[in-house]
Amino acid sequence: MARTLQRDTEAVQQMRELGQQLRVDSIRCSAAANSGHPTSSMSAADLIAVLLARHLRYDISEPRSAHNDHLIFSKGHASPLLYAALKAAGAISDEELLTFRKRGSRIEGHPTPRLPWVDVATGSLGQGLPVGVGIAMAGRFLDRLPYRTWVLCGDSELAEGSMWEAFEHAGWLGLGNLTAIIDVNRLGQRGPTRHGWDTAAYARRCQAFGWHTIEIDGHDVAEIDRAYTEAEETAGQPTAIIARTKKGRGVPEVEDKEGFHGKPLADPSTAIAELGGPRSIRVDLARPPDSQRPHRFSAGQLRLPAYEVGSKEATRTAFGKALAAVGEARPDIVVLDGEVSDSTRTGYFAGAHPERFFECYIAEQQMLAAAVGMQARGWKPYAATFGAFLTRACDFIRMAAVSRASLRVVGSHAGVSIGEDGPSQMALEDLAAFRATHGSTVLYPCDANQAARLTAAMADREGISYLRTTRGSTPVIYGPGEDFPVGGSRTLRSSPGDQVTIVAAGITVHEALSAAERLEAEGIAARVIDAYSVKPIDAVTLRQAAHETGHIVTAEDHWPEGGLGDAVLGALAAGGLPVPPVRKLAVRSMPASATPAEQLADAGIDAAAICSAATALVRGEGG
Amino acid sequence: MARTLQRDTEAVQQMRELGQQLRVDSIRCSAAANSGHPTSSMSAADLIAVLLARHLRYDISEPRSAHNDHLIFSKGHASPLLYAALKAAGAISDEELLTFRKRGSRIEGHPTPRLPWVDVATGSLGQGLPVGVGIAMAGRFLDRLPYRTWVLCGDSELAEGSMWEAFEHAGWLGLGNLTAIIDVNRLGQRGPTRHGWDTAAYARRCQAFGWHTIEIDGHDVAEIDRAYTEAEETAGQPTAIIARTKKGRGVPEVEDKEGFHGKPLADPSTAIAELGGPRSIRVDLARPPDSQRPHRFSAGQLRLPAYEVGSKEATRTAFGKALAAVGEARPDIVVLDGEVSDSTRTGYFAGAHPERFFECYIAEQQMLAAAVGMQARGWKPYAATFGAFLTRACDFIRMAAVSRASLRVVGSHAGVSIGEDGPSQMALEDLAAFRATHGSTVLYPCDANQAARLTAAMADREGISYLRTTRGSTPVIYGPGEDFPVGGSRTLRSSPGDQVTIVAAGITVHEALSAAERLEAEGIAARVIDAYSVKPIDAVTLRQAAHETGHIVTAEDHWPEGGLGDAVLGALAAGGLPVPPVRKLAVRSMPASATPAEQLADAGIDAAAICSAATALVRGEGG
Repeated sequence: MARTLQRDTEAVQQMRELGQQLRVDSIRCSAAANSGHPTSSMSAADLIAVLLARHLRYDISEPRSAHNDHLIFSKGHASPLLYAALKAAGAISDEELLTFRKRGSRIEGHPTPRLPWVDVATGSLGQGLPVGVGIAMAGRFLDRLPYRTWVLCGDSELAEGSMWEAFEHAGWLGLGNLTAIIDVNRLGQRGPTRHGWDTAAYARRCQAFGWHTIEIDGHDVAEIDRAYTEAEETAGQPTAIIARTKKGRGVPEVEDKEGFHGKPLADPSTAIAELGGPRSIRVDLARPPDSQRPHRFSAGQLRLPAYEVGSKEATRTAFGKALAAVGEARPDIVVLDGEVSDSTRTGYFAGAHPERFFECYIAEQQMLAAAVGMQARGWKPYAATFGAFLTRACDFIRMAAVSRASLRVVGSHAGVSIGEDGPSQMALEDLAAFRATHGSTVLYPCDANQAARLTAAMADREGISYLRTTRGSTPVIYGPGEDFPVGGSRTLRSSPGDQVTIVAAGITVHEALSAAERLEAEGIAARVIDAYSVKPIDAVTLRQAAHETGHIVTAEDHWPEGGLGDAVLGALAAGGLPVPPVRKLAVRSMPASATPAEQLADAGIDAAAICSAATALVRGEGG
Repeated sequence: MARTLQRDTEAVQQMRELGQQLRVDSIRCSAAANSGHPTSSMSAADLIAVLLARHLRYDISEPRSAHNDHLIFSKGHASPLLYAALKAAGAISDEELLTFRKRGSRIEGHPTPRLPWVDVATGSLGQGLPVGVGIAMAGRFLDRLPYRTWVLCGDSELAEGSMWEAFEHAGWLGLGNLTAIIDVNRLGQRGPTRHGWDTAAYARRCQAFGWHTIEIDGHDVAEIDRAYTEAEETAGQPTAIIARTKKGRGVPEVEDKEGFHGKPLADPSTAIAELGGPRSIRVDLARPPDSQRPHRFSAGQLRLPAYEVGSKEATRTAFGKALAAVGEARPDIVVLDGEVSDSTRTGYFAGAHPERFFECYIAEQQMLAAAVGMQARGWKPYAATFGAFLTRACDFIRMAAVSRASLRVVGSHAGVSIGEDGPSQMALEDLAAFRATHGSTVLYPCDANQAARLTAAMADREGISYLRTTRGSTPVIYGPGEDFPVGGSRTLRSSPGDQVTIVAAGITVHEALSAAERLEAEGIAARVIDAYSVKPIDAVTLRQAAHETGHIVTAEDHWPEGGLGDAVLGALAAGGLPVPPVRKLAVRSMPASATPAEQLADAGIDAAAICSAATALVRGEGG
């Protein structure tokens, strides 16, 4: 591969032809779909042609092979180019290519892993490079294999801060196995980009973040080839190839012109003719080196921490200790931190398994993206920060769901109960955000043993699992051997004459138990349900309680919208029967600083508030 | 001010003394609270002392004056230092300082605008600088006044991509009225930062993004003073002052040591003695120049676009045209774009009012932060992008609510109805996210006239308002003169014998109307409610419909969690009476590419699906 192309006229010509074929096929599939982004594909066609023909090492018949290079289209809207490339490589047929954007097709509008050659879904700009950093980290620190990660980026997406989290992290780690190919076609969706064709502006930025940079003409195949070779030969530093290109290259009607983003060509036949007509070049990709086996860490026994009933511990601490224990038993577990491991308690894992612990500093988007990248290589990541700061990475979580990724996300410092630090540090919308994530699991333990078991249960959960932990210590109410199946609940108090059910989770379970005692003293029998599995929620138990007790109070340390109360209402309503009166207690005004107990009282979610709500409901005093 | 301090021994000594006072007061208030971040305050004390004494121009008795400089603590956890500074400037008393972090105090754990000298809440790192960029933009392009914006940043927060969106945007605009003061104390929350004291590493990055940089010893008051003067004298370029400092400076027990983040000092009396004891220096801040009046744009007449009933138009287009019209009538309206103005249709405003239109490129965090900064100066921003990409900025929206900011956010391309582009471009969680934002308003129009009226209604709404628009054309069903109050709804079909109520919003309103016609043919009378105001929702009308019709179907182009269905259930449950059977139709599987009509059918939210759900409910066939 290092052999220079410069004087090799035939090879150069073949590469140019392949580039034209990729353009023609991008136009053809977009024309068949009558939508798509052919012009954004045409700018990068030569970049991808050279990569396929001479640099990408990939066994197309074994897309899950640990040895393959990885190719991510961070500019996911250039999907016609990706599909044209997969056709050229023999992965898909021309017939399938022409199903682009049609119902039922794997050839979706933007790439998703429904195609086995696609690691992760892209289409939300600024995500492919951070995910690529995660794959490159897996290659270097986990799999310890020589595969390379190539990421095709757009110039527009360099405006996204997440890209600079990625440049910073990859530069700092010196990921020589990572190459960003930046397609500087100077035109964004609605007009010129900030820096146009000033490739030097991008190069200065990348260099400042520790990258090796190469500025090239992105339509000169020999220059592209030399740049890829230089990237491959650059050790200890990631490389950014900054390629000046033209959007719509090769078709005068659209080349380097505004107003043609995301549109099929008006006259595809003429355009195809201008590009020299259809071709059927087939590229045999280089096979990856496969002599080394992927590194695997050694496994021990699972010994979850155990807490005595009646003692006190914070669920965040129990999570942290359990995570270290799960890491001991499961060598595929990896942990990512957003520079708060002392607070989330992932520090225990860091101490026990430093080789599988990744400090991502205060860059929550990169943290989540690295987790997505690592799971694409079969690792099982847990990523943790304050629940409040996970709002920084919502788009990454959203796209992880589109990627069918399996991830474990842990948010500490839930709700007003953190106390004095105030609202900027309180997660009050995390249950809503994670419930509204497709295919997610949402868990919210109330005691240390439950937190430990749920931490372990997450390891094998498909999709995106979220664990919500509490800052302060809470009483241990469950024994260490007890099981807490996902989708279950625990009925903590129950008698045949119950007049009201209190549904709680996490910190409010303890308030609910106190409230039930006070209610008993007032002659009201209250059932208490610990809904530790907020999604899926235990609809059967809730419906039975609703039927038997006739009144429901929900109490949650969260805004009223989208959290536990809504989950309970949804489960009851889905039963097809009338829902009894429900009183939803939640945080309704903006908190400030106060002690944890004052916060719970001010928010109206403490034992006293639950008690009054239940009393009013039972006595028919309205909601 | 330009007078050099170097040989002015007395002034230098006073500055040092003021720095020590700020340290002592940071320790005192943290000791009184028994929590807080004194060591992170102590590193920046000299930086703030010099700013107060010789550079900040601020009329402390008129915190809302248009002429004041702005000081933002991007490292919001250094709140003890901010409060110590406010005390030194005579804004608050020593007594109030010592209420730090206590219930009811304005002196909160992290700064919020409950204190009139605080523009915006901080405490989620990486937000203060982007907001400062917004204020500096307001100063230069809107108010056109010479006030300066000073932002105290931490070194840890430079890992956040949002900071680099800010560096990029400010550098590109050449905001000479903006200074970032970077407190490089080398220690983050859980240990050393990536770059430690390598101030040159930060300087290279800032320079690459177009900033003027000055590296200094952050404890040398003369050097600090010279740097501020140089920043003031640097035109056409923002300045980053990169100050090497020591965390916990001045107290040997904690100075430059790990393990003391976010903790009050163990022995405050000794520490205070080591710092020379308490002082009561009072600083008279320089008065801001106030000869110029703030620029104001001229106002015209409001002429909202009008659409004929029976025609078709996309709500995104009606929004765009209405926004341009509102901008004509309201000179305080400003619009921010995330490089998709052709799609969101804010391009109409850009054409009509280019001086009040701000292209933020694909940097949703900076877009929202700039909006927050501009509203802090009294402007009324609308910020728009695809609803899906607003998930990029959730933490900024969360913090905007803590800031009591008034913002209008518009998300286009709602739901599966966008069609072929696929799930990466579909907003399917935006209703959940904006409902779970404190004090928010959530609006979702179904036709062009309604979209236009709601666009206008948002202008004077307090708090965070969200408008959800649809990509494709929908039938115009309301006349141009009709009113749509926030909190209201429209009952589109109703008769005394209704057996079921269909609650819809946006695209599903049209499906609900078709379904009702089909149901009528099958002998089932269905009421149809257009719940265009998703939050606050029209609980009275919904409860009455539930009472009168006995069955409810909700239909929404959104995940099942946290959206319209949950809003309806919440409203019904809050009525204190039993809730009739409810069938919630929503998007339950991951969409792919397909036509808009296929998408609605596949998601089970089209007329046919609504019809079957209603029929099953009325015939008692379960939920």
